[in-house]
Amino acid sequence: MTKSFGSDNHSGTHPAVMRAIADANTGDAVAYGADPWTARATAELRRLSGAEGEVYLVLNGSGANVLGLGLLLGRHEAVICAESAHINTDECGASERILGTKLLTVPAPGGKLTPELIATRLAGRGDEHFSQPGVVAITQSTEVGTCYSLAELRKIRDFCSDNGLRVFMDGARLANAAAHLGCTLAELAEHADVFSFGGTKNGAMGVEAVIVMRPGDAVSAPFLRKQHMQLSSKMRFLAAQFLALLGDDLWLKNARHANAMAARLASALVAVPGVEVVHPVESDAVFARLDPRRVAELQRTWTFHVWDETTSVVRWMTAFDTQESDVDAFLADIAAVAGAPTA
Amino acid sequence: MTKSFGSDNHSGTHPAVMRAIADANTGDAVAYGADPWTARATAELRRLSGAEGEVYLVLNGSGANVLGLGLLLGRHEAVICAESAHINTDECGASERILGTKLLTVPAPGGKLTPELIATRLAGRGDEHFSQPGVVAITQSTEVGTCYSLAELRKIRDFCSDNGLRVFMDGARLANAAAHLGCTLAELAEHADVFSFGGTKNGAMGVEAVIVMRPGDAVSAPFLRKQHMQLSSKMRFLAAQFLALLGDDLWLKNARHANAMAARLASALVAVPGVEVVHPVESDAVFARLDPRRVAELQRTWTFHVWDETTSVVRWMTAFDTQESDVDAFLADIAAVAGAPTA
Amino acid sequence: MTKSFGSDNHSGTHPAVMRAIADANTGDAVAYGADPWTARATAELRRLSGAEGEVYLVLNGSGANVLGLGLLLGRHEAVICAESAHINTDECGASERILGTKLLTVPAPGGKLTPELIATRLAGRGDEHFSQPGVVAITQSTEVGTCYSLAELRKIRDFCSDNGLRVFMDGARLANAAAHLGCTLAELAEHADVFSFGGTKNGAMGVEAVIVMRPGDAVSAPFLRKQHMQLSSKMRFLAAQFLALLGDDLWLKNARHANAMAARLASALVAVPGVEVVHPVESDAVFARLDPRRVAELQRTWTFHVWDETTSVVRWMTAFDTQESDVDAFLADIAAVAGAPTA
Amino acid sequence: MTKSFGSDNHSGTHPAVMRAIADANTGDAVAYGADPWTARATAELRRLSGAEGEVYLVLNGSGANVLGLGLLLGRHEAVICAESAHINTDECGASERILGTKLLTVPAPGGKLTPELIATRLAGRGDEHFSQPGVVAITQSTEVGTCYSLAELRKIRDFCSDNGLRVFMDGARLANAAAHLGCTLAELAEHADVFSFGGTKNGAMGVEAVIVMRPGDAVSAPFLRKQHMQLSSKMRFLAAQFLALLGDDLWLKNARHANAMAARLASALVAVPGVEVVHPVESDAVFARLDPRRVAELQRTWTFHVWDETTSVVRWMTAFDTQESDVDAFLADIAAVAGAPTA
Repeated sequence: MTKSFGSDNHSGTHPAVMRAIADANTGDAVAYGADPWTARATAELRRLSGAEGEVYLVLNGSGANVLGLGLLLGRHEAVICAESAHINTDECGASERILGTKLLTVPAPGGKLTPELIATRLAGRGDEHFSQPGVVAITQSTEVGTCYSLAELRKIRDFCSDNGLRVFMDGARLANAAAHLGCTLAELAEHADVFSFGGTKNGAMGVEAVIVMRPGDAVSAPFLRKQHMQLSSKMRFLAAQFLALLGDDLWLKNARHANAMAARLASALVAVPGVEVVHPVESDAVFARLDPRRVAELQRTWTFHVWDETTSVVRWMTAFDTQESDVDAFLADIAAVAGAPTA
Repeated sequence: MTKSFGSDNHSGTHPAVMRAIADANTGDAVAYGADPWTARATAELRRLSGAEGEVYLVLNGSGANVLGLGLLLGRHEAVICAESAHINTDECGASERILGTKLLTVPAPGGKLTPELIATRLAGRGDEHFSQPGVVAITQSTEVGTCYSLAELRKIRDFCSDNGLRVFMDGARLANAAAHLGCTLAELAEHADVFSFGGTKNGAMGVEAVIVMRPGDAVSAPFLRKQHMQLSSKMRFLAAQFLALLGDDLWLKNARHANAMAARLASALVAVPGVEVVHPVESDAVFARLDPRRVAELQRTWTFHVWDETTSVVRWMTAFDTQESDVDAFLADIAAVAGAPTA
Repeated sequence: MTKSFGSDNHSGTHPAVMRAIADANTGDAVAYGADPWTARATAELRRLSGAEGEVYLVLNGSGANVLGLGLLLGRHEAVICAESAHINTDECGASERILGTKLLTVPAPGGKLTPELIATRLAGRGDEHFSQPGVVAITQSTEVGTCYSLAELRKIRDFCSDNGLRVFMDGARLANAAAHLGCTLAELAEHADVFSFGGTKNGAMGVEAVIVMRPGDAVSAPFLRKQHMQLSSKMRFLAAQFLALLGDDLWLKNARHANAMAARLASALVAVPGVEVVHPVESDAVFARLDPRRVAELQRTWTFHVWDETTSVVRWMTAFDTQESDVDAFLADIAAVAGAPTA
Repeated sequence: MTKSFGSDNHSGTHPAVMRAIADANTGDAVAYGADPWTARATAELRRLSGAEGEVYLVLNGSGANVLGLGLLLGRHEAVICAESAHINTDECGASERILGTKLLTVPAPGGKLTPELIATRLAGRGDEHFSQPGVVAITQSTEVGTCYSLAELRKIRDFCSDNGLRVFMDGARLANAAAHLGCTLAELAEHADVFSFGGTKNGAMGVEAVIVMRPGDAVSAPFLRKQHMQLSSKMRFLAAQFLALLGDDLWLKNARHANAMAARLASALVAVPGVEVVHPVESDAVFARLDPRRVAELQRTWTFHVWDETTSVVRWMTAFDTQESDVDAFLADIAAVAGAPTA
């Protein structure tokens, strides 16, 4: 197939990750994480993020989100999140099913919460008839490809501290945010109580980390990971993936490259009539409005998702292995299709 | 380390599986299972098991068990299982946590349920004060390394049909049972409504299949798999593992080999004074009683679990990659330790 | 205190209900519903509603809603409801907590769903990433005091049938709807698969009925009622309450009276400057917009809730025991306060 | 019917309780507990139990148990309880369904846990594969009518404190225990973190209290009570019941009377051949072994439960309103039946 612009998880595994997996396939290792690969990977993640707590490798993004929320939520508490949050729209209601929690959603322009938006869901605190928010869940980079600035994160963090709310950060694409902001993982991490750090969309075969910033929040983590069916027996093969991504800053290089490919696409689209980029391009995603007939035509050759049928907005994702030539070929077809007369 | 006798998941990934994973790493593929590897692997699993329903690849054994039970359980129902069942003793209460179900346990000699044992937990059906069993969960091969014969399975199956009970079979080591019984997967599968077929303990890196025998039981499966956080995005890498195991009957060869190694160990132990094999050796596990001081001494060199401290029973597991020389070296040390005078 | 306009559950117990409770206090009765009062009350409720299924008495409105939804929801399914639905706004997230379901909410003008509004939440059916609606929950009369007409109910019912959706009707104030529409309970019931019929807001001390229209939907009901902690041991005292309400159509008389008191209030408000009734008054509730300073002043003497601080809308509820003189005294104070100059 | 010996909830409502309910039916009261009856009842319960935390009135015994456990359990934790505990055998799996917790049961002679028995379920703490006990649930008086002495309670309490376990006490019949032991409520309460205090089996129409000894454990209580559907709107009618029971020590008198009736029955049974009392009679229950044919014959006239068919043990319960003449008539029939020749 032509290079997919459908999702950063349509890509395969980065060759360095694949090599690390193969290299870990050497003799026996104690299962469930009591192996040297896991020790090294989690130590390195702790170091990079400045976490004083613990790091838990899990099997996918939903697993990371639900575990992370579960660590911070009181048994009766609810989650405030953007209406567009992955936990709200793309996980089939896993948080409600597994945690029994309610998601108190907020329409968030550009996918980003603010103290003001969070405040709209705080009415009724202390009143037993109303759902009681205990956690604010943000996504960095967001579902629509934007990034919270460090100043924006700090404001949310401060507001949450002042209001007795914990912060969970869904970092399925945290690498892309770090690349965009030019900041360290620790500078992002300090604004969350627990966050996920995604490997899969960054070139891994399938692994995510749940990083708990303070030890007190990690007490139930090993047990919830097991109960949530996120404990891998041959853990070394998860850990090896992170070791490859963390070694020589591959995670950052992959993210920078994917971001650059999205930027290349977006900047060229400015000159394409009939295509309107609808969100700032700050990671590896380009959201654009396009006549539905053009969309259909383009999808004959290229793989991508229609994000919102009602507004005819599509999502074009790049990845660590998107080539400039892929972008340019895609651009040429977009331009051809967008500029063509329609019946 | 010396070859581990601690668990069949202390082994790495079979070279053929590792090759298949690497071979699947070729360009893009649509995520979440809409790829040709998944189509082939699930078709082949359906064919081998004679299932008219569907096959769902999941990430680990607990994930397979909880999904399988969830497909068969009414919202209010409970599960009958052996006290020694993995779902009862080794999954941190995942079934209770995720499904909200109660496990009605039965002390089962040799790890095997019978109609008579199941019947002991049927009192109070129809009475709203009592937990209502809806599913019988059996494990094949069992937690203590024994196998249900096909006749035993049929009796359970018939009893369950007669009593309005569904059958879930935990097949984390189903390959070992097929190897021991010399039967096909379909001959095992026909006695269950839903069963799991384990790859991980058979040489995979990490993949299990949940196989639904009749389409009517699969209606909620894709959604529950997602809610249970068991849907892998780069699914081709799960599917490729099964393709390797199923090709050229590797799954059966691996199981036969592991079983043979356990048999070699067990048969030689007959001649070792101070060691008593306590369960029939019908798969890749040997359970033996040994003086606790001998156990401690042996664990200085060899990795294995004490199964029951109160009875001083240990578990020795073989695997697809256990060598005759490993067994013989282990045997020599067992004999040396067991025969030595103790302080 | 002056008569409360705060809620129809600020009232006490209707004298006839209290008498019935006292009369049931005669000697022993088998517990948990195997008593003659329960037999008679449930038979009468079945008859009145035309249900071929069963009737389950429960302890309060949340208990009725969660049980009703639980009977209709597949394990993985979600609920479509109005944003203003009691289950969404007033039960602290009980449906999510107890059923693990997601509420797919729709902003519904006048508190009423329509096929068109329901249709907005049907995107993504069959796609495992999206929550899968299985039940539509409507409230009759609604949270804002309006009633679905029988024609509106029929349209929803037909749409749901055509789209594989079940209908649950929250009837905490179903009596008020029957009184307003001048229809029978059966004419309302036929549009739902399961519905609740509220006693508490109609003059009972505390009892609600969950009515299952077809036997097939009741299979798990006794067990879920128990698991949901809604099974009363001295059930006769719940049943006696319904016997009193159903005898001599007291339920209907109570509802008609409460509705008439709300109508009296609303019709007089037309002439009061500074007060705007914002929803059609079709049950026992009047929603009105009033300057916040007037609200505060009025609350010094009278008990009622501010419904929406941002729009300064208040809710005034009548009840079976609200007197014309209560309404008139309240009206006089409203007029005095509304007409007074503000500082 | 003849006086039931089936259960203490076959009795009706004590006249003083009924009067208190009727007396509370005076005009309006704010709903959900913000009324003077609730304030007085909870204050009095707090005073009697010495609780520094809070008191929550709920609707039935299962509601009290599940709420109490939910307050003490970490999200991932399990409960240690006697195999015979009501939460394990008589609530249809409510704790598993609602809390997602596992019950780690212990066969407990006489229905009583001991530190030694609790210790048998502590293996595997800290190991993520094993369920992690967080709460020990005891029942006072027990399911088989025995009572923990204060010394026994203290031992459990100390053991739990030493082992990081919280104590929940199911006090559905706590009054009977206080009557038997001749101790105060506070002397019982000090050995639990949270306990329930039952009204229903003591002469109430239907009310239980959940009493939280320390404020820190009550943080989530109002919200969990609502989510668990245990919040009554016309709460004054629950509170009035407790006010009647607490006034003039009626609760203690009722319990003493019921206990005395059980003692009268048991002491006379010593002289009845063919009947063997199998547990110490320390509350309002007599457990006796009797030939199954005698049981059947006796049940033609008298209402009671067969506790264990396999051992032919029956349960005979007395209540606040059992008369000496009831006991004597029952005794005469038991003696007649037991002494008669069987075919």
